[in-house]
Amino acid sequence: MANTGNEKGNAKQAETEKEAVLPPKSNFSEWFNTIIDIGKIMDVRYPVKGLYVWYPFGFGIRKRVYSIIRDVLDNSGHEETLFPLLIPENEFMKEAEHIKGFENEVYWVTRGGMSPLDVNLALRPTSETAIYPMYKLWVRSHADLPIKLYQVVNTFRYETKHTRPLIRLREITSFKEAHTVHATWDEAKAQVDEAVMLYTDIYRQISIPVLISQRPDWDKFPGGDYTIALDAVMPDGKTLQIGTAHHLGTNFAKTYDITYENENGEQVLANQTCYGISERSIAALISLHGDDKGLVLPPVAAPIQVVVIPVLFKQGAEEVMAACNTVVDSLKKAGIRVETDASDLRPGAKYYKWELKGVCLRIEIGPKDIEKKQAVLVRRDTGQKEFAPLDNIVGEVTARLSAMGNDLYTAAEKRQNDFILPCQTLEEVKEAIQTGVATIPWCAEEVCGKKMEEEIGAKILGIPTKQDGVAGICPVCQNKTSKIVYVARTY
Amino acid sequence: MANTGNEKGNAKQAETEKEAVLPPKSNFSEWFNTIIDIGKIMDVRYPVKGLYVWYPFGFGIRKRVYSIIRDVLDNSGHEETLFPLLIPENEFMKEAEHIKGFENEVYWVTRGGMSPLDVNLALRPTSETAIYPMYKLWVRSHADLPIKLYQVVNTFRYETKHTRPLIRLREITSFKEAHTVHATWDEAKAQVDEAVMLYTDIYRQISIPVLISQRPDWDKFPGGDYTIALDAVMPDGKTLQIGTAHHLGTNFAKTYDITYENENGEQVLANQTCYGISERSIAALISLHGDDKGLVLPPVAAPIQVVVIPVLFKQGAEEVMAACNTVVDSLKKAGIRVETDASDLRPGAKYYKWELKGVCLRIEIGPKDIEKKQAVLVRRDTGQKEFAPLDNIVGEVTARLSAMGNDLYTAAEKRQNDFILPCQTLEEVKEAIQTGVATIPWCAEEVCGKKMEEEIGAKILGIPTKQDGVAGICPVCQNKTSKIVYVARTY
Repeated sequence: MANTGNEKGNAKQAETEKEAVLPPKSNFSEWFNTIIDIGKIMDVRYPVKGLYVWYPFGFGIRKRVYSIIRDVLDNSGHEETLFPLLIPENEFMKEAEHIKGFENEVYWVTRGGMSPLDVNLALRPTSETAIYPMYKLWVRSHADLPIKLYQVVNTFRYETKHTRPLIRLREITSFKEAHTVHATWDEAKAQVDEAVMLYTDIYRQISIPVLISQRPDWDKFPGGDYTIALDAVMPDGKTLQIGTAHHLGTNFAKTYDITYENENGEQVLANQTCYGISERSIAALISLHGDDKGLVLPPVAAPIQVVVIPVLFKQGAEEVMAACNTVVDSLKKAGIRVETDASDLRPGAKYYKWELKGVCLRIEIGPKDIEKKQAVLVRRDTGQKEFAPLDNIVGEVTARLSAMGNDLYTAAEKRQNDFILPCQTLEEVKEAIQTGVATIPWCAEEVCGKKMEEEIGAKILGIPTKQDGVAGICPVCQNKTSKIVYVARTY
Repeated sequence: MANTGNEKGNAKQAETEKEAVLPPKSNFSEWFNTIIDIGKIMDVRYPVKGLYVWYPFGFGIRKRVYSIIRDVLDNSGHEETLFPLLIPENEFMKEAEHIKGFENEVYWVTRGGMSPLDVNLALRPTSETAIYPMYKLWVRSHADLPIKLYQVVNTFRYETKHTRPLIRLREITSFKEAHTVHATWDEAKAQVDEAVMLYTDIYRQISIPVLISQRPDWDKFPGGDYTIALDAVMPDGKTLQIGTAHHLGTNFAKTYDITYENENGEQVLANQTCYGISERSIAALISLHGDDKGLVLPPVAAPIQVVVIPVLFKQGAEEVMAACNTVVDSLKKAGIRVETDASDLRPGAKYYKWELKGVCLRIEIGPKDIEKKQAVLVRRDTGQKEFAPLDNIVGEVTARLSAMGNDLYTAAEKRQNDFILPCQTLEEVKEAIQTGVATIPWCAEEVCGKKMEEEIGAKILGIPTKQDGVAGICPVCQNKTSKIVYVARTY
């Protein structure tokens, strides 16, 4: 495995590191670190802790996932914008709850050139305090509402915990944050619901099932009314928060003086929401679908969807190459991302290489296939080997790519369901969260919740937004309740 | 006009400011500041000097221009990547020439949370010192070369000069920087030539002609061998640098120890180039094409390409709306970005509004047009009013959008040529640069060049890469020379 520290390895060391072998996925933590490296997602050797370099291949995945995110937002009335990175200290310090939540994690610019700055500038940990002073200027009347803007930006956290690529970063390179303004609390609530629906749709498109829950009050967004979160269950049973939507009520509007004139000519405080998604989406994508052989990428996110491998012998080599070229041309014309591997590598080495990269479909064509006017198609996720007629290769490939996206979702959803372990007692919860996510009845009182967390030594994730309504007993106060709650070890 | 300073105006003030009237373009500086505001490109009221907010409409232009930039690079063997913003002081300080060029302009992060950092972190002013330590690890053998990567990122300059949106910024929000590695100096030179060609192509696509010249040695990129620059001539005759390509030779390779094993098994220093383009491209686009009525946007960059205006009377209103809807639907299906304006505004007010926004083509349909099965088409750039048959509306619109892109280029090129004023004496140059760009013979010796700059009180822009080879006399040393040089006032 590559260095994660501050030293750079020298070139020779690095060379050796590159030949790292992928551990089995059952050893998830090591598997993840290794696939990030040999799967060419990110280089972890940048000489500052918690900052990483996107390899072009990893960036190709990011580009496609973020294109889906942008499409979903653009098609639901959001507009893209871009606000400055640097936030002046006086604006940043206005919202007391918000500051408390972030002040230990903020990077400060204090010098420009050789001189100290008059006003220190924060690197945005998130952009409320950059955007809302402008919203104060933009919002005048009810006719200006709703405002639904988003941006994709880098944000910063001075993490003191153990950092790791895509998951816990000092520079979040790919933070998509939306910030909306509404007339009423209910309209803002409807926007939070829409955000959760849109995020679920985005994750569905990259074949990722999610747990949706409302965070307990003591774990909501600093300065907000409530927080709905999307979590993925990682292969080790720990959950990864991969999206949040916050109802901000009028809290920030009060601080930043965001008011509008209502239909009666009165100045009223606006209601706001914000919601975000980051490159943790890529972490989930890699972790949920990958296997012992390497990456498995949903076709919509794969930089290379198909690899064509000519099976060459002395006899008939020209015909095989010609057939492969024809296939590649017709796939390219159909907009499929395809490469040919006519290298000298042994077949086994080729398979290894393209499987590691998560290429969705391998097509092999040899002299015998040409005789039979067919190709061999091997799906990356199932390993299933099938024959397909050459004269309908585009249709055959398209059908398999589409099926693969669905099958990956179904498989991931099944694994997720298996991770959910219904419990009735705190003892059972303690046991369950060693391998998965526990559910347990909860009366929803903070005093019981905090006691539960203390006894279990793990966090309450949240109250699922969809409840089955079956009655149970809160294990702390012993009162009857129809609510359950997720409890999990979290990333 | 909106505030440019540190105070925020209150909402009422801002309201009044929004009704600013566009001054004639002959008053270019005021025209530019006003169009940025009322054209909804950027909001200049962000409470830090030199930082601005992209309005969604301005961002829509940026998005389309950067999509062209990405396409041109992706199609010429470049790969997109992403490196960290923060550069540790020790890496940043390695290349002496480079530091000298930037040290007065660098923002420094010195604090994380409540504690001072062990190592101060620079906000990248440009990314050589972030990328090249990684290139040291990535480059091993001649087989790894060339490397051609680019990224689109925010970069920072602590500008002490007067800042203005898109042109002189403290946060350059949209810096596209490419960094390449090659085996030989000549291959790197060929890459610089390719970069200039690609940039010229990009600018041609957004209808912008450029002056291409080699900067004098005393004005090249700090740490490089030589610099080729692309400049646009702005409406006031001053030039705006809108792209640069730098041959770095082996200078940075020496500092960052970037070597490769050549075919003889020897370790050799690599040659490098870098080239960049920023949102100054948008500044040029707005400035070169706009007119007294507002923005004029090339169709490829326009967020809205067509507006359909129903001309409604009591009689026949339904038929008119139906015809407009049919037109809008067929244009949308053809991928044209179209809006309808069926508001209550007077026709004159509608024209004003959409002309200000630079919408390429206005379509008006009234009851009489329906009788004649036609629509009225008005081009934004020429104001030309034409009739077109409704049953071929997509073809008619497409042809005009395509013609408009070309015509904008031709018109801009003609204006650029008119700005170039050939001179023989320094007196003539002094006079010429009051209104345009002077050319004058130069022996290419630094001593004569610097003397020239001193006497003229303006900068030598550079030596055009295409020379006509006609002999002239250097006005300083009086020697014969076949070289001329551009002299201009610059932004």
